[in-house]
Order: sequence, then C-alpha cells, then structure tokens
Amino acid sequence: MPDSTHNLTALKSRLLEIRHLKDAAALLSWDQETYMPAGGGQTRAEQIATLQTLAHAKFVSPETEDLLLHHIDPATGLANADADGLDDASKALLRETWRDFSRAKKLPSDFVNRLERECSLAQQVWAEARRRNDFMHFLPNLQNVIALKVEEVGHVGYDGSPYDALLDTYEPGATLAQLQPLFASLRHGLLELLRHVREAAQPDDRILFQAYEEQQQIAFGKLVLHGMGYDFNRGRLDLSAHPFTTAFHPTDVRVTTRVFEKDLPSCLFSCIHEGGHGLYDQGLPQEHYGTPLGESLSLGIHESQSRLWENNVGRSKAFWTHFLPLLRQYFPAQLGTVSLDAFHAALNKVNPSLIRVEADEVTYNLHIMVRFDIELALIEQRVPVKDLPGLWREKMQEYLGIVPERDADGVLQDVHWSLGALGYFPTYTLGNLYASMFFQQALQDIPGLEIEIQRGHLLSLKAWLNHNIHQCGRQYSATDLLHRITGQTLSVEPFLLYLRTKIGDIYGFTSTQ
Amino acid sequence: MPDSTHNLTALKSRLLEIRHLKDAAALLSWDQETYMPAGGGQTRAEQIATLQTLAHAKFVSPETEDLLLHHIDPATGLANADADGLDDASKALLRETWRDFSRAKKLPSDFVNRLERECSLAQQVWAEARRRNDFMHFLPNLQNVIALKVEEVGHVGYDGSPYDALLDTYEPGATLAQLQPLFASLRHGLLELLRHVREAAQPDDRILFQAYEEQQQIAFGKLVLHGMGYDFNRGRLDLSAHPFTTAFHPTDVRVTTRVFEKDLPSCLFSCIHEGGHGLYDQGLPQEHYGTPLGESLSLGIHESQSRLWENNVGRSKAFWTHFLPLLRQYFPAQLGTVSLDAFHAALNKVNPSLIRVEADEVTYNLHIMVRFDIELALIEQRVPVKDLPGLWREKMQEYLGIVPERDADGVLQDVHWSLGALGYFPTYTLGNLYASMFFQQALQDIPGLEIEIQRGHLLSLKAWLNHNIHQCGRQYSATDLLHRITGQTLSVEPFLLYLRTKIGDIYGFTSTQ
Repeated sequence: MPDSTHNLTALKSRLLEIRHLKDAAALLSWDQETYMPAGGGQTRAEQIATLQTLAHAKFVSPETEDLLLHHIDPATGLANADADGLDDASKALLRETWRDFSRAKKLPSDFVNRLERECSLAQQVWAEARRRNDFMHFLPNLQNVIALKVEEVGHVGYDGSPYDALLDTYEPGATLAQLQPLFASLRHGLLELLRHVREAAQPDDRILFQAYEEQQQIAFGKLVLHGMGYDFNRGRLDLSAHPFTTAFHPTDVRVTTRVFEKDLPSCLFSCIHEGGHGLYDQGLPQEHYGTPLGESLSLGIHESQSRLWENNVGRSKAFWTHFLPLLRQYFPAQLGTVSLDAFHAALNKVNPSLIRVEADEVTYNLHIMVRFDIELALIEQRVPVKDLPGLWREKMQEYLGIVPERDADGVLQDVHWSLGALGYFPTYTLGNLYASMFFQQALQDIPGLEIEIQRGHLLSLKAWLNHNIHQCGRQYSATDLLHRITGQTLSVEPFLLYLRTKIGDIYGFTSTQ
Repeated sequence: MPDSTHNLTALKSRLLEIRHLKDAAALLSWDQETYMPAGGGQTRAEQIATLQTLAHAKFVSPETEDLLLHHIDPATGLANADADGLDDASKALLRETWRDFSRAKKLPSDFVNRLERECSLAQQVWAEARRRNDFMHFLPNLQNVIALKVEEVGHVGYDGSPYDALLDTYEPGATLAQLQPLFASLRHGLLELLRHVREAAQPDDRILFQAYEEQQQIAFGKLVLHGMGYDFNRGRLDLSAHPFTTAFHPTDVRVTTRVFEKDLPSCLFSCIHEGGHGLYDQGLPQEHYGTPLGESLSLGIHESQSRLWENNVGRSKAFWTHFLPLLRQYFPAQLGTVSLDAFHAALNKVNPSLIRVEADEVTYNLHIMVRFDIELALIEQRVPVKDLPGLWREKMQEYLGIVPERDADGVLQDVHWSLGALGYFPTYTLGNLYASMFFQQALQDIPGLEIEIQRGHLLSLKAWLNHNIHQCGRQYSATDLLHRITGQTLSVEPFLLYLRTKIGDIYGFTSTQ
C-alpha cells in the first residue's frame, strides 16, 4: 500500500538528474555539429555514450522502480486508485514515466550496449559508403543493425505487428493497423494530384536559384524567426551540415540552418522549419522540466509544428504578402520585379525529385512511403537487406516515377537506418497531417488570422500553439490532443484539401477527389 | 592481499567514465562563456552541478575504493610493495589517484552539490555586478562562497594553515609556510626594481593604443598561435569576457581571447598566454587520458607554460625580430615606422595599473600578493567579506601605490572568487618563477634557440616543452619535475635576474640586488 504522505518530490528529483545527463549529451552533440574541432570526434562519441549509458542505468534502476511503485499499479500502468491528492497532471506524469520505464527495462543493458556500439559504427560506415556511392560497403553493418532491431522487437514485444514495437518509440500509441489505411488513401490522393500537376503548365522557379549573398540570407532567416516569436534570448541560430533543433531546457533551445549561395529556399525554409520545432521546445512548460509533462508529445506532433510554420504558413500567399517586400529589401537586384503570385508559385512548384529533404509538399510523403514500405518489409523479415537498392528503385518508380542512378541519391541518402531509427519515417507524414488539421482549427479559432499573417503578425498563431499544444507536454495522447483541439480524429482529408486548393490555384486546375 | 593477476583495467575504465562526466561539465562551462543564450543561465548551473556531483559520487564510491585497495596501501598511499609487475607509471597513476580519492572522499556529496550550484550562480551574479560596478549586488553570493570554502577546509583538514587545505587543490604539495618567505623576497626584489624604474625615463607606449581593427587583431593572434604549434585541428579560438583555456581531451583543447580596438596588447598577449596553456593540454599523453598521468601537474606548472610563452618568449626582442615585420603587414598605418627597440620597450613598459591581466611583468606579482593577502585573511576569518573593497584599496596603495576608483576595476575584476577558487592566485606567481627556470634551461639545452626565435622558429621550444613537461602528466611532483629538468629547487632569483636584465636594458640602468 502506498504511503499516503509520500509525494512525487523524490521521483521528480531523480528524473531531473537523468534529464541533466541527457541535456549534457545533447549539448555535446550540438557542439559536435557546430563548433567542435575535427580532431575531437572519436573521443566525443565515447563521452556521449558514457552520458547516455549512465542516464539509462539510472532510469532503469531498482531505485526508480521503487519510487514509481509508490504510486503506480504495475498491472494497469496507472496511478493507484487510492492515491488521494494526485491531480490529473501528476497522474499523467506517473503514467508516462511508467510507460518509458517499462519499455526501457525490457531492454537488457548488454543489448543496449551492443546496439549503441553497432549504430555508432554503422553511422560512420554509412557516411563513408554514401561518399563512395557504395552500398555493399554499408551492407554488413546495416544487416547487423536490422538484426539488432529485430532482436529489440523480441525484447519489447507487441500485439499486432512487430513494426508497432518500433513505431511506438517515436509515436506513442500509433500502430501499423492505423497507419496502413491512412497511408493508402493519402497515396491515392497524392498520385491523383500529381497527375493533374503533370498535365498543367509548370511555374518557373529559376528566380529562387540566382546568387543570394549568404550572410544576407542568414540575416533574413533571423528576421523571420523573430517574427515567428522565436526568442533569441533563449535560443540561437548556427550553421551545421544538416539543420536541426536541440533543446537543453525551454530557456535554451537552439536551431541550425545551412546556406547555399544559389539556393534561396534551402536556408529560408530550414530556418522556418527549425523555428517551428524551436517554438515547441521554447513553449514547453518550464515548471515540468525533467518530467514527461515537460517533454514534447511525439515526433509526429513535433513535426506538425515545423511543417505548419514551414508549409501552411511559410509557403502561403498571406505570409509573403508581408515578407516579400522585406525580402526584396535584402535582395533588390534579384527580386526587384517579381510579383507576389510568381514568387508564391515558384516556392510551391511540384517536381518529383530524388532527395527527400528537398521535396515539394506533394511528393514529400511519397518519399516517406518508399521508406515506410521498405523498413516494414525489413522488420517483418520479408526481404533480405542486400536487396534494398533494387527495392528502392522499384518503389521510387512506382510512387514518384523516377529512379536514382546512384545509391548515394537513393537508398543511402538518409542517416536514419544507420542509427537504428526504424519506425521514425512515418512520423514525418503524421506531422504533415496533424499540421493541416491544427492550422485549419487555428483559422477557425483566431478571428482574422489570415489578415494578421498578411500583415506579418504571427504572434496570435504562436500563442494559440503555445496554449493548445506546447504547454500540454505529454499530458495527453496524440489522439486525445487532436480531439481536444479539433474535435476530430486523424484523417488525410484536411491535408489533401489544403494541398489541392493551393496547388490547384497555382497550376490553374480544380481537383476534386 | 592483492590478487596478483588483478590489473588496472577496471580502475582505468572507471576513471575514464568519471573523466567523461567532467569533460561534459567543462563543455557546458565553455558554452556558458561563449555561445549560451543569456536565458539559459539558471538551468545551466544546475546541469553542471548534477554532472559534477555524479562524477564526485562515482569517484568516492566504495567500488572505486575497492579497485584502489587492490594495489594501494592506505597507510602510505603508495602501491603495495608486493605489487609485482607494476611499472613506475602505473605506480604513479595509483599514487595520484589515491591522493585525489583521499581528498575527495572527505567532501560530502551534499556539500559538493551545494558548492557547485552556488559557484555557477555566483559567477553569473559576479559578471552582472562587474558590469554594473556594484559590489553589493555580488556580496551575498560571495559571502555564500566564502562560507562554503571555510566549510571545505573543515572537511579536508590541514596541518599548518587552513589555507594549505585550499592551496593543495591547485598546487599539490605547496604550503603557506613555503610560500610566505618566497613571496617576501620576491616582493622585496620587485619593489626595489620598481624604485629603479620610477627614477628612470619612461618608454612611450602610446603606439600600442591606437585604433587596431578587431578582426585583424584576431587574425594576427591566430597567426602567432599557428607559429607556436597550437593545432587548430584539435582546438579553436573564440571570444569571451575573460580569456581562458579548456580541454575535453588532448584532441579538443580550446582557447579564448578578448579584443578591444584601442588596445593591441590585450588580444595579442591573451592569445599567446592561452596558447601556452593550450600547448600543454594538447601535449598531454593521449594514452593516459582519464588517469592522472593524462592530466596537467598543477596550476603553477600550467601557468609556467602560459607565462613562458607570453613573457619569456612573447615579450622578448628575439620574438619581435621575426613577428614585428609580420604585424606591420596587418597594421601598416599604425606600425609603419616604429623600430624594433621602441616596440619592444613599449611592450615592456612598467607601469603600475589597476588591472592584473594587463599588468606588466614587474607589477604583476604585486597584484597577486594583494589577492593572496586578502584571501588568506578571508580563509583565516580575519576580515568580513563586506570589507573587501576597502581592504583592496589599502593593499593596492601599499604594493602598487595606486587605488581604483571603481570596484569594477578593483575587487570585482577577477572571476576566481566567484568560482570558489581561493588558493588559486599564488599559482600565477609560482608559474612566473617556474617559467624563468624552465626557459633558462631550454636556452641551455637547445643550441641556438635564441636565433631560432629570431627567425620565428618556435617548434624546437614547443618540442622541448612537450618532451620535458607535457608528456609527463602527473608522473612527478612539481618539485621533482623542476629538479629533473633544471637540477635546482624553486627560487625567485632566476625570475628576478631575468627581469632586472630585461628591464634594466630597456630603462638604461644596472640593477643588482
């Protein structure tokens, strides 16, 4: 029987220590990607591994379990019925901590160690294989990683599909059974839209690929971040090879971008995308730092924040009504004469291409489905790893109608599998779906939001996201949160409607399902 | 009885984990001083405290003690006589680890946590107080720090003076009884030299305080660092309010500087000084990383490396024979006509001033003595903390004959006390004394070293320091190392002789004691 005077202080203080270790590891990673001298790489990997191993050991320890069992019924994973005095937030805190604990505890520390080591090695081999365009060089390591992920599924267990055991890490509660019909109807809608696009005249986007001075690009990116309400007193923008966001606390949330002189969208949309992630992390409730209530809900919800800002806002005509005249001040020679319509069309050009991170909004999710189909087959052990390059080309042909000549532009392009991150890719698509549903609701909830955006006033939207999403941490499941906000369950229709409207307008066709 | 098959692997692996935690804390501190957004300060302090506390707890744990007692006789602190097969390096590793362990074990975890937390916070308050020239703003935090250091002395214990308990952290083996006569004869010699200087004609150093473009100053600082053999593939140079060096491994050693447009020496000598520290840390034996053999010997020896480069080399005529023509290329308008002799004289002008880090070589150690006297009085609880501004002015008047108008230029100028680093200042003076003894020996050991320096060839000197000092880690005591290299014991005479000769030459007098 729990001691009724026992409160959560001891548990929270233990979780806080663990969070500090993870935040330190995150700073070591941020530094590795931004300022670390090249020679420091080998030792840095070992330092990060030590911190993560200690964090894991501290979390799965009997001491943590004892603290949890004061309040939790292990049979249900819920707070004890007789735990008087626990408010809803505390019950959610316990439920989510127990959830993490139960999963972490199923993984033997020997297994965690092997996985860690293999992924660290595989990532280096992957980078080298991509440089050399040599899939066979990566094959043995990828085989090891897949075998370990299959082993992980065995440790964790599952009800429906083995894929669920991995998906659940990134998108708690999501299942294959739920994803597959969703993805099927999304694919149907996107391929239909793509057919319309192919039959129409293409917008000219060459204006985006003139020479744009890099420091000016970064300065404009900062201006937009300021406009979004990203707080530079609690954050910063740096350069890295691959843009990312990392948070050590809501008061220290950092975004990175990259910049290419002849590619205006790259730096611009990296800033907005990462800024969307950054607003989420800056908006998490500080008073719950260290507990699940101070953490983001899922990767899908996180991605919804970046994609909402990048696409629903950042690729809208309303947004550029205000920002194009400002951008023109930065680049008068390049943008002096372009019209709002032409600029907006260029930013939204649909063009099937090989690289996911450069894809337009219509084809992006088709890239995800290529990866989803393949990693599902891997985890269900339906295809040998060596067949991946062929399978990749097959799926690319089927969904996008183009095929990479080099594996470096195909199966080797993403880091995720080398890191053991199988089950991660679908969260990108979930993020796009959530984003449209949230944005649609924001338009209903905030009177005159579109006019505000046309005037560059973005702070009502930020406040709406803060209040409805960021402040909730992990108090609700993704399904519950979505229902609380929109009254709906997840569906592809709002996203498809948004895309058909925007793309149909630009391409001059009316697309109905 | 120790198991004769037991080797040091388990101990080393435990020490390595602890080192990783400390390195992570060091990166969090570096980041705090360089790139951290202002809002992140409060949480950063707590994160660092958690890492330090964990490192401390792991180090003083019974597991570490067991591993040590396989080899160590706790009565002597030395490796067991019957520990066959241990080479001298392993015995030194055990001796030094036991030394650290015995001291650390005396500090309760709760105390370490309070100290770390308070110091990290106090440092931020100090920075604000210095900006605002407001000692009272800092007073409560400084009082807390001093109280904690007094508590620390109680935990650690001492034979001679309570000050020894703190001094020993930074300069193992040093005692107040040894320092006081050394400092007395140094003060006597310096005040004598200062009298001669005051009676002579003063060199004109206004040329150093013209406008020098800041980016050019930094570029020249990097050029000198390259020349010294500082490896930028294993290091970097950043800006911070107070220049410092930090190392996370010999492959990642970072220095910082500061730059003021109208002050050429500030950035220049910060670069050289921190570069000297950086060479030491880059030169530590990588194979001993994680153990005392991979650590610097003492702060005094560390400072000897920075001061040797800054003063014995960087303020010598030989050095500027090569580097003045290069500097002239960076600043032709400012330095087009200055002669080597005039430039060298300007760099070595003796001028009692308020700020320690900008002090000339004659008055520098008098600044140290001001701080030494005050912190000794604090630890012996002879003065209340609130009296420090007055006491500071009193001591400045006594030793340097000048008094600061603002506390920002007085008692608030140094970060050390906010960090709890009492007992640290004397190591600067020890560093100056060691530096002259080492450099004198290098001139004897390396044929034609002065000519090499005149030609800008600094790598023989670097190699000599690498071999004789850096590679030794903590294998020998400072006294033993000095004796191995020079055959001498520590004395003030080599330093005074070096200074009398250089300053006498510039000021046109012959000074004999």
